[in-house]
Amino acid sequence: MNEAIFLKACRREPTAYTPVWLMRQAGRYMAEYRALRERVSFLTLCKTPELAAQVTVEAVERLGVDAAIIFADILLIVEPMGVGLEFAQGDGPVIHRPVRSGTDVDRLREDDPRETLPFVFEAVRQARAGLPSHIPLIGFSGAPFTVASYMIEGGSSRNYIETKRLMYNDPGAWQALMERLVRIITAYANAQIAAGAQAVQLFDSWIGCLSPADYRTFILPHMKTLFAGLTSGTPVIHFGTDTSGLLELMAEAGGTVLGVDWRIDLDTAWRRVGYDRAVQGNLDPVTLFASQDEIRKQVRQILNMAHGRPGHIFNLGHGILPQTPVENVIALVKMVHEISGERKMKN
Amino acid sequence: MNEAIFLKACRREPTAYTPVWLMRQAGRYMAEYRALRERVSFLTLCKTPELAAQVTVEAVERLGVDAAIIFADILLIVEPMGVGLEFAQGDGPVIHRPVRSGTDVDRLREDDPRETLPFVFEAVRQARAGLPSHIPLIGFSGAPFTVASYMIEGGSSRNYIETKRLMYNDPGAWQALMERLVRIITAYANAQIAAGAQAVQLFDSWIGCLSPADYRTFILPHMKTLFAGLTSGTPVIHFGTDTSGLLELMAEAGGTVLGVDWRIDLDTAWRRVGYDRAVQGNLDPVTLFASQDEIRKQVRQILNMAHGRPGHIFNLGHGILPQTPVENVIALVKMVHEISGERKMKN
Repeated sequence: MNEAIFLKACRREPTAYTPVWLMRQAGRYMAEYRALRERVSFLTLCKTPELAAQVTVEAVERLGVDAAIIFADILLIVEPMGVGLEFAQGDGPVIHRPVRSGTDVDRLREDDPRETLPFVFEAVRQARAGLPSHIPLIGFSGAPFTVASYMIEGGSSRNYIETKRLMYNDPGAWQALMERLVRIITAYANAQIAAGAQAVQLFDSWIGCLSPADYRTFILPHMKTLFAGLTSGTPVIHFGTDTSGLLELMAEAGGTVLGVDWRIDLDTAWRRVGYDRAVQGNLDPVTLFASQDEIRKQVRQILNMAHGRPGHIFNLGHGILPQTPVENVIALVKMVHEISGERKMKN
Repeated sequence: MNEAIFLKACRREPTAYTPVWLMRQAGRYMAEYRALRERVSFLTLCKTPELAAQVTVEAVERLGVDAAIIFADILLIVEPMGVGLEFAQGDGPVIHRPVRSGTDVDRLREDDPRETLPFVFEAVRQARAGLPSHIPLIGFSGAPFTVASYMIEGGSSRNYIETKRLMYNDPGAWQALMERLVRIITAYANAQIAAGAQAVQLFDSWIGCLSPADYRTFILPHMKTLFAGLTSGTPVIHFGTDTSGLLELMAEAGGTVLGVDWRIDLDTAWRRVGYDRAVQGNLDPVTLFASQDEIRKQVRQILNMAHGRPGHIFNLGHGILPQTPVENVIALVKMVHEISGERKMKN
């Protein structure tokens, strides 16, 4: 067995097969997770290091993936900022005091995440201790735009009207908010690395609602600052969805690995971000509702588009959906290992 | 004043300024429309030719746009198929008997739209009669995938799980459904043309949830058949959102004009679909919530990316949102005319 092939792939070193992990690999699609969630709320789970570490490690054992990702939520960092975070049953996150003005931005608290979110770093330490040495642990954070969109909209959104309204109509407040989030996220990600995370993924999940011109004006400078502040030497995965028109700009912003969704061919995406960078992706999560024959066909297509080039990490294009059949997830991981292993043997 | 500059732009002929119309230009953002909707339901409005023609013409008069689009809904065609259509107050469309199997597909009725939807063609005739001769009337239909997604999901969807499940797991039923929709949509669009529509837009609004590989397998052949069946000589606008990874395939499918959303730079999109084709787009609808200075900046950016090349029709990247300030919509149309007019004078 290879050691830490996930980290090798981040560095674009050859591996015997293509590493695979899956966004939201610990989640509601798993019976074990649902059983645990019957006893504790989502926020309690996030804030109890033993439990967060447990679900992190269990997912790896169950699936046979090549990396773990710490169980947490991208909105944990907004609670200590004072906006009032709640996870309402079935309705997703609710922010009770949304940020809509420069005054609201100024009121946000900015404390050291090591003091406000110690449970995350303790979960990282415990998960790292519980994992086999050849399985790297990925830390993560939401990226500034995506976190800001929840803070401004007050929860999930379809059109991001309030977010863009603030961005367009009060560029000063926007800049202050981005700068504050960049500082907090930098400290938060670096503290996860210090606690044992061997890679970090930045989730800019909703960035794809922006035009390339708006990304360049309102996002790119802040993302550059963020990447520059992350502990050097640790691979960073830069991920978003709906980003087919933004990939070059995201690559310009930074990241060791670019995470892409299924809305673009992997070979096109890789050509556009440049072969001097690793890529992660990009199976449509809904494919996991198909037969295993169809899943195999699509896995093969994606691996073919990677052309056996070192630096491909297999993943979905977004998180596993709650209703996904767990047996298909397990089968997917096996398929990626088998098909890519055969292919690389032939090369 | 130029005659029918919208049609000239569809044919990529030079125009004195860039034509502009706006998706959902007759809609809830207008006080006149809201007043009318207090008296009649959405479906009644669609089914009363005098009223549908009235809102179609009023929007043109109010905004000064270069084309009208018939007031209708992409789901009108599914009602005579027997699935049970309802527009629930505030909740969007509901399909009472969703299509989930080959048996469900076989049960769908397939009648001549001229018999089942005469009110649409009468609305086209009345709108055409009520419009100035230099303002072309655009007819439209949903494209097969987008219409099918509502029929299968039973309404709007976030992840299109049921749609893709049918597509992957019962390709025979999927093909039968696509073929049936292609026949109905072809007849429906051609009947609008016969009634006086001088162009047609196919809304494949939700096609961007598919990977390019899935588009090629499950959609492209049917779209080619559809385009081949439309009355030749009438410009067809082929529109979707989230399509930055699909544009080449959509161009291969067909369309005189490719409609693109704001998630890609217009110049990149045009280069990718080819300069032998007109393009339509692509301002982010949320920009209309910004100041007019910001709107002007973004209009200028988009016109700059068109490089004054004949064959650009200005539009939003998707429909006008209900809360949009009407004065900004009116200002937008003026800005497009002024800025593009000055630019073309200089050329």
